Amino acid sequence: MKFFVRDIDISSGGVPVALINFEDATKLDIHVGDRIIVKKGKRKAHVVVDIASSEKVIDQGEIGLFDEVLKLLHAQAYDKIDVELADKPSTVQYIKDKLQGYELNDKQMDAIIADVVHHRLTDVELAYFISACEVYGMSMKETVSITKATVNNSDTLKFKNKIIVDKHCTGGVPGNRTTMILVPMMLAAGLTMPKTSSRAITSPAGTADTMEILSKVEISLPELTKITRKIGGFIAWGGSMNLAAADDKLIRIRNPLSLDPEGLLLSSIMAKKAAVGSTHVIIDIPVGKDIKIKTKKQANHLRNKFIELGKKLGIKVTVIVTDGSQPIGYGMGASLEARDCLQVLRNEPDAPQDLRKKSIYLASKIIDMVKKHIKDPRAKKLSSTKYAEELLDSGRAYEKMKEMIMAQGGNPNILPDEIELGEYAYHYKAKKKGRITSIDNKMISKIARTLGSPVDKGSGLFLKVKRGYSVKKGDTMFIAYACNKEKMNFAKKFFDKAVKVK
Amino acid sequence: MKFFVRDIDISSGGVPVALINFEDATKLDIHVGDRIIVKKGKRKAHVVVDIASSEKVIDQGEIGLFDEVLKLLHAQAYDKIDVELADKPSTVQYIKDKLQGYELNDKQMDAIIADVVHHRLTDVELAYFISACEVYGMSMKETVSITKATVNNSDTLKFKNKIIVDKHCTGGVPGNRTTMILVPMMLAAGLTMPKTSSRAITSPAGTADTMEILSKVEISLPELTKITRKIGGFIAWGGSMNLAAADDKLIRIRNPLSLDPEGLLLSSIMAKKAAVGSTHVIIDIPVGKDIKIKTKKQANHLRNKFIELGKKLGIKVTVIVTDGSQPIGYGMGASLEARDCLQVLRNEPDAPQDLRKKSIYLASKIIDMVKKHIKDPRAKKLSSTKYAEELLDSGRAYEKMKEMIMAQGGNPNILPDEIELGEYAYHYKAKKKGRITSIDNKMISKIARTLGSPVDKGSGLFLKVKRGYSVKKGDTMFIAYACNKEKMNFAKKFFDKAVKVK
Repeated sequence: MKFFVRDIDISSGGVPVALINFEDATKLDIHVGDRIIVKKGKRKAHVVVDIASSEKVIDQGEIGLFDEVLKLLHAQAYDKIDVELADKPSTVQYIKDKLQGYELNDKQMDAIIADVVHHRLTDVELAYFISACEVYGMSMKETVSITKATVNNSDTLKFKNKIIVDKHCTGGVPGNRTTMILVPMMLAAGLTMPKTSSRAITSPAGTADTMEILSKVEISLPELTKITRKIGGFIAWGGSMNLAAADDKLIRIRNPLSLDPEGLLLSSIMAKKAAVGSTHVIIDIPVGKDIKIKTKKQANHLRNKFIELGKKLGIKVTVIVTDGSQPIGYGMGASLEARDCLQVLRNEPDAPQDLRKKSIYLASKIIDMVKKHIKDPRAKKLSSTKYAEELLDSGRAYEKMKEMIMAQGGNPNILPDEIELGEYAYHYKAKKKGRITSIDNKMISKIARTLGSPVDKGSGLFLKVKRGYSVKKGDTMFIAYACNKEKMNFAKKFFDKAVKVK
Repeated sequence: MKFFVRDIDISSGGVPVALINFEDATKLDIHVGDRIIVKKGKRKAHVVVDIASSEKVIDQGEIGLFDEVLKLLHAQAYDKIDVELADKPSTVQYIKDKLQGYELNDKQMDAIIADVVHHRLTDVELAYFISACEVYGMSMKETVSITKATVNNSDTLKFKNKIIVDKHCTGGVPGNRTTMILVPMMLAAGLTMPKTSSRAITSPAGTADTMEILSKVEISLPELTKITRKIGGFIAWGGSMNLAAADDKLIRIRNPLSLDPEGLLLSSIMAKKAAVGSTHVIIDIPVGKDIKIKTKKQANHLRNKFIELGKKLGIKVTVIVTDGSQPIGYGMGASLEARDCLQVLRNEPDAPQDLRKKSIYLASKIIDMVKKHIKDPRAKKLSSTKYAEELLDSGRAYEKMKEMIMAQGGNPNILPDEIELGEYAYHYKAKKKGRITSIDNKMISKIARTLGSPVDKGSGLFLKVKRGYSVKKGDTMFIAYACNKEKMNFAKKFFDKAVKVK
């Protein structure tokens, strides 16, 4: 059947859609989500049908095509094109199999991921895939398959170095910006650490947001490869690269119900590590009652899965289970966290010691794994912890941070105090004398986000206390920063809930 | 945040979407599928966010809104409107609960179905709901809930009559047009039978397609109510009414993976019966190895479920399990099937006796259920089967059919031979002497559809043989009809596969 083209000037970046009239659809026995091939001369494109319910939208005999499809066909509005029914991709049957409880093999998983990346599956079909992974779980074999498939269908970074170290944290603890300290430490030890990080999703700031205070973080793959060759690594926003693209697309479908099947959680993390060629990875699993991983048991279960998956991928994994019961560092919010990190790297006396200690602990665990590959003679002489301390104390990590900031287009000489904060500041004071018994991670995040984080970089809060500190009535417990008065006032109603004094 | 409106001139009839730019979405921390409220003055509308991946589509600061949303807001292109984040409907949590294996209660199911009808759930969210129903199944309690919810959120037909009879067939047998004979029989007995039927999905013709040869089938609810009051019933296309609207929307999501969870199958059928006020329903479950219900065991399981669900809804259900191993009647295709039906009603000697017998059997089962409510004194004197035969043999059913055709705007005096067939006819002949051992339902449907059914009304095939018949070499086994030569030639390659001779 022939149709006249209408140019539909939208596209959401998903599977390309063709809109046809309800009557035409009935005549052709086509339903929403069916595949058709649109053809002009020798050019053709596969698209998914959506049905317009009124003539106002698409008249009989018309077909609405997105820009990307018109480009493929070299077609334009009012052209006459051919339409043919097409088969569903075979991956739709694999998804149905998984939804009926069958295990998928390497080939099937790879085909699904390839179709995800190339927009050949609709959101509805992907939702069925996610459901199946959620309800039946994924075997370790399937988890390995999907991780490999994600890497196979991804841009990758390739280096000649035999050893590439990496780090991941399962998250939930505000202020936990160890990556910003760990990467320059590892680079100072002569190791390679091409670090892709994320922006905040529910926290005041992600590592990418924080690094962005000091330099660019959206950098092309060739540029990042050059930087890595020159100074050993970088800290960049993973979302700006096409690394593990399938994963981002699946997360989009997982979001509406916040589904987090374990197999996808594991593969999501490990695929990103594999895509940059990591050989040794440290994974930080903070445990706390108000964060993602709530119990040691959960953390240990996940630890074993990470190690097992790593083995199958040829990646050495060390997992540390850490205290996630309160925020780490003083600053919560991109600029405040960047200040914290610079202070630790500069060995300033006011630097947050918990952030320093945790960074040293993480570094020592990586050093444990790769010590024999470190050329620096000090690595062999000192214990891993002492060597990690030395990397910081000597200022060599800070020097590397400055090199990295410069390589990523920032000002390497910026001092912590020079990082601008929101112009509205409010000192929240203790209402009574006592000891701090708890600081609520979720409430701290909520306050920082209400103050404007992560959009207003200078907003957030600066903790003057930690659990166990004693306060007198009138002592400042935290300083809240905002870029406008409304946000400050709006945030105030949560202030009483953040820190408990007894 | 304020946005400038862009008028996006499409809409697929699903949940209303607002398109915003990728950068704005990042700033506002909004993801695909999130809900926002768009406001102009006091008017507001809830919409779901989709994210445009390029400036070409939606610029920063712009929001693309569908026509239906603009109407709600009394807004137009270039207007400035407000955008606020909105919560997800609470039904999203119910769907997540179901996906984690919990049973949903009446209230939750009703809320889901209301949100389905009012376009408040996205396709992805609905796919999760269908998955959950598929994987965990639905308890009888849930099946009752969703059936009631579908009726509560549906247009309905209301009559004062105490007894309203109805019929359903689970399908798969070509030519099985008993409804066309049963309805006039029931009307002749003085019963009320407001019959909504479907069009063909995978068969050569549905009852609605076949009735459409004789009269209109897309008729408004008030008109149908009038017709029912006057003559006792009608045969109309259910799709043109808003009966059980939720069901149609769920089927749209079930289609991509052809998912058919039992609870939804049951509720889909029974909701439509309840929406027209049925009190007594006969359900025909044909069993055959190449159709939907393949074994007697499956059929008996389904029978029990139908009866149980009927009880909970206050509907008396009789289920008959019938032979679905070969087509019924001679004609396959809307016009050919309409001819068959008229011949049976007119008691013509050439009328297909299998179609007549099955219609009488179905009628007798309904009469069994409602005999005491039939005022016609013959009903009490005769056995149900004899009375059913009498309704046909006396010509009273045919008279009712003529009344119905007239009431639905058709020509009541049309004779079977006057119904036009495709101008191309091909006599397919036996290649050897022998007995007919089988006729393949699926292949017969495929041939009829390749010949042009259900779009070309006059296309299809006319069987001259049934299983058990003997043929000589050269005997015509069926006549194929098409409206153009290409379709005939295309269909020919399947002809050898339809009828087996041994």
